[in-house]
Amino acid sequence: MTPQDTVRPTNPRMKALIGSPLKVLDHGFVRVVDYMGTDASVVQAARVSYGEGTKTPSDDRSLIRYLMRHQHSTPFEMCEIKLHVKLPIFVARQWVRHRTASINEVSARYSVLSKEFYIPRLENITEQSSSNKQGRGEQLDEYDAREVRLVLGDHNENTYGLYEQLLSDDQDKGYGLARETARMVLPTNIYTEWYWKTNLHNLFHFLKLRSDPHAQFEIRCYAQAIADIVRNWVPDSYEAFQDYRQNAVTFSAQEWTVLRDLIPIGLRDKLFEDELGVEYGLSAREAREFIQKLRESAA
Amino acid sequence: MTPQDTVRPTNPRMKALIGSPLKVLDHGFVRVVDYMGTDASVVQAARVSYGEGTKTPSDDRSLIRYLMRHQHSTPFEMCEIKLHVKLPIFVARQWVRHRTASINEVSARYSVLSKEFYIPRLENITEQSSSNKQGRGEQLDEYDAREVRLVLGDHNENTYGLYEQLLSDDQDKGYGLARETARMVLPTNIYTEWYWKTNLHNLFHFLKLRSDPHAQFEIRCYAQAIADIVRNWVPDSYEAFQDYRQNAVTFSAQEWTVLRDLIPIGLRDKLFEDELGVEYGLSAREAREFIQKLRESAA
Amino acid sequence: MTPQDTVRPTNPRMKALIGSPLKVLDHGFVRVVDYMGTDASVVQAARVSYGEGTKTPSDDRSLIRYLMRHQHSTPFEMCEIKLHVKLPIFVARQWVRHRTASINEVSARYSVLSKEFYIPRLENITEQSSSNKQGRGEQLDEYDAREVRLVLGDHNENTYGLYEQLLSDDQDKGYGLARETARMVLPTNIYTEWYWKTNLHNLFHFLKLRSDPHAQFEIRCYAQAIADIVRNWVPDSYEAFQDYRQNAVTFSAQEWTVLRDLIPIGLRDKLFEDELGVEYGLSAREAREFIQKLRESAA
Amino acid sequence: MTPQDTVRPTNPRMKALIGSPLKVLDHGFVRVVDYMGTDASVVQAARVSYGEGTKTPSDDRSLIRYLMRHQHSTPFEMCEIKLHVKLPIFVARQWVRHRTASINEVSARYSVLSKEFYIPRLENITEQSSSNKQGRGEQLDEYDAREVRLVLGDHNENTYGLYEQLLSDDQDKGYGLARETARMVLPTNIYTEWYWKTNLHNLFHFLKLRSDPHAQFEIRCYAQAIADIVRNWVPDSYEAFQDYRQNAVTFSAQEWTVLRDLIPIGLRDKLFEDELGVEYGLSAREAREFIQKLRESAA
Repeated sequence: MTPQDTVRPTNPRMKALIGSPLKVLDHGFVRVVDYMGTDASVVQAARVSYGEGTKTPSDDRSLIRYLMRHQHSTPFEMCEIKLHVKLPIFVARQWVRHRTASINEVSARYSVLSKEFYIPRLENITEQSSSNKQGRGEQLDEYDAREVRLVLGDHNENTYGLYEQLLSDDQDKGYGLARETARMVLPTNIYTEWYWKTNLHNLFHFLKLRSDPHAQFEIRCYAQAIADIVRNWVPDSYEAFQDYRQNAVTFSAQEWTVLRDLIPIGLRDKLFEDELGVEYGLSAREAREFIQKLRESAA
Repeated sequence: MTPQDTVRPTNPRMKALIGSPLKVLDHGFVRVVDYMGTDASVVQAARVSYGEGTKTPSDDRSLIRYLMRHQHSTPFEMCEIKLHVKLPIFVARQWVRHRTASINEVSARYSVLSKEFYIPRLENITEQSSSNKQGRGEQLDEYDAREVRLVLGDHNENTYGLYEQLLSDDQDKGYGLARETARMVLPTNIYTEWYWKTNLHNLFHFLKLRSDPHAQFEIRCYAQAIADIVRNWVPDSYEAFQDYRQNAVTFSAQEWTVLRDLIPIGLRDKLFEDELGVEYGLSAREAREFIQKLRESAA
Repeated sequence: MTPQDTVRPTNPRMKALIGSPLKVLDHGFVRVVDYMGTDASVVQAARVSYGEGTKTPSDDRSLIRYLMRHQHSTPFEMCEIKLHVKLPIFVARQWVRHRTASINEVSARYSVLSKEFYIPRLENITEQSSSNKQGRGEQLDEYDAREVRLVLGDHNENTYGLYEQLLSDDQDKGYGLARETARMVLPTNIYTEWYWKTNLHNLFHFLKLRSDPHAQFEIRCYAQAIADIVRNWVPDSYEAFQDYRQNAVTFSAQEWTVLRDLIPIGLRDKLFEDELGVEYGLSAREAREFIQKLRESAA
Repeated sequence: MTPQDTVRPTNPRMKALIGSPLKVLDHGFVRVVDYMGTDASVVQAARVSYGEGTKTPSDDRSLIRYLMRHQHSTPFEMCEIKLHVKLPIFVARQWVRHRTASINEVSARYSVLSKEFYIPRLENITEQSSSNKQGRGEQLDEYDAREVRLVLGDHNENTYGLYEQLLSDDQDKGYGLARETARMVLPTNIYTEWYWKTNLHNLFHFLKLRSDPHAQFEIRCYAQAIADIVRNWVPDSYEAFQDYRQNAVTFSAQEWTVLRDLIPIGLRDKLFEDELGVEYGLSAREAREFIQKLRESAA
């Protein structure tokens, strides 16, 4: 595409990403099609809400961190991204459960799907976890893993052959079956494609759930690619998301009671804001809120 | 379940439906799990909105028809239904595009799916339509159709065998592969199950789109079963839906110009409210609105 | 803002609109802050869905009209717009019922609202309609209308004075009341502001409902301003919206029976595609679909 | 209403709540109109998802706690509640920002609103907080607070008089203005009413945000009343919500680093599951997950 000039908020770093797919799994990708807004748009929307009430012209990064910390989610809805994604159907089935997004997917009623199937790499061929009903356990030994790859490859080959036979309108080779019927033999590791558009708030929710170690490996690979895009697109928001959501730790009421008993009172009361800043990187405001949280909860 | 007494709005006709699945396709079903509200709840909500403004205590059916006719959708949101559905994955993939609903689906990460696959009946095994890119054409001749059923049956059998082999933790028979990996060989005609909960407004939207002749045959079968449930659950609302949405006809601005030119002016001006009532079943108010629509548009 | 270059889809006509508020009512406005996508984005998303299945490389306008005609709504979700709006609270209360949108509104808990109130112009000061419970009737005579404007002006003045008195922390002048409490005396004709972001599909729904003659005059003024923006932003989509939604006419099952009886059979069967094209501007495909609709329904 | 018998999931405790409004503020209330589902429905939906994969027939309460702890939100969507609420407009304006709910509100275009206004009690008439831009500070002294109540009362009285004058179609007393126009003079402390229907997952989100000390006092009163209802309706889910959401504490990545440094390593490594059970009420599984969380994070 020929660049055009625009007065819209623009992040120059995204220019390189638009149209350059990030590879995911063996045949998949994530590609930025378009985006709307930048970190500055989050700030702009927040300042509308708090109007003249915003005490000091605090810098944008601090305001974004404040919003994330206090779960003010609507300013993050003011950014939007549209991705072109190629992914196996079983991943698509997990992905689509995020309902607040717009999707246009290739329809196998209209088109014949391409012969592209996902086969896990050797190191991702694992046993069923015995401790975790939904998880993977140990890697299979290499010999078995190779065999599994071969078996999967044969299955893909045979199934696609059947698909073609069902579709073929050459009377000697097939049945001329309707595409919408023939496609039902295809396994869920065949690749599909879609355009997927969502706002930044919902995207963070997606990243939180789908980067989690409990998410299936394959969708985590997509979450990782998208995280790389978001880090470039809205670096301050992404950093705040990591600190306050993704790498944050939550304790239940009961757990927190235990924790407090583990912290010697003397230590707790010796926390000073500036120390927290120097040694741990908390801003003055964050340090103040943290100390208050410790004391209040202790009450 | 033992019946309990309740002061909630209740439709006695639903008692027979709760817990009695309606069969759909070869192994599927739709079963009412729970519901909230009745036709009276639609009326109740509408009367809140229009308060004392509701001119006359018009009967409930007329009010419901008025709401449907004028696209007052929120009162229909006041009814909710929860269904247990068993359906092939390729149908589930179309269904899930209706985003304003709550779903809990069997997870093939946690559980081993049962050996149940959809195979179309002979009369539903058809050619690709030549005129309609997304549709079915003529039935295959019986000999070929029987062959297709056999071929599909073999494929199901073989694929499920492979699935079991991948899963089996008997070292001589299989690989002990993680369930979440093994399931990717399964074709989209295998059955899955879910609880699906939505409100009546969104359900009507579902019925409109999925009963349409352009919808795929298999999802239309589910729409038909649900329509039967809705007809029992909220008969007045369902009737209004049929008259004003499902069997209504919409003409574009241009088409309407053509239509008007086809109607002799003399005839149009001779329409009388009472005639419309006697001969066509329009209420006085509907007849008045209809005549007005004809004249206004003619302007 | 300094223009920057971008490879994103861009509509040059929007450059003039960004940052140039369209005035609405006495103190309100609608201003484009940002947008994502153009008519080409609708087409691009649709072509993903129908993939190679798109028979002929039909031109974009025809495809957009086809999508609108057949209620394929997801491609229109691929465009997004963000508006800055200043509007009276009573209008905001109607507007916010469109739930699939993102909003950041000025908070009267954080900020003191400005002294700007909506007062209708003379010609919009009308009686209660006697025939329509929710509507306006005749204009008041000019003398009374002028008086109403004066009365409203006084009320605004007095109320704002009270608001200032409640807020003032000068002990001699007021009470220093919390902003979140003091604001509760303000009437719903005071102006508020928000950023409002939605997708094109939902925006069309907004325009359909809020341009309707049954919508309150004041929100119709906003719908009109937004329609002007949309016409510039996505001209083909807007035209299709007008033809197939806004200016379309829908007949119930019963009404359609009456209509058919009004059309002499001879006329109906003499419709030819090319005539419909020449005289009424229907494309060949539209004409074919129209004739089919007339005949099918007649069955 | 006469009780009827039903086979739907039913909570006998709710019988007393249906139709018995809980008073809120001076003229408001919250009243249960209908509900769908109980704690058992949450469990039932979860067991569909995890199917035979549910390892042991763990008791319902533990499963509900597990779901809440791990943010499995869809089973909670399977319960629905419909409330009739009377509330000041300024509260309604905050409330309506929760978009995933269905609402039918009294329309002041159709009906004349009643003369009922909210006036805070003496102890809720407070200064603007100096430290918190959106909050309340100290109570006003009693003399001033009484004066504020009088001033507000006069304002309500005068405004309602004006409203009546604008509406009156007695030529000597008023202007016969359209209701939709006249209502714009009404302040946002006038009461409105609506039916509000939402699912349990979204309701918990509402309760979390609107019970928060940063929420405005008046909406917190409604959240409190609703919390009382939910505690009766779904006691296990509500308890889990309190422990894992409402009274839980979240620490950012940085804060957690500080915390860990405050906990003597010796203490951390001496935590035993059974102690945590006996002294702090953690189940064996919760204790195990907690210890793991402490160790992992320490890595």
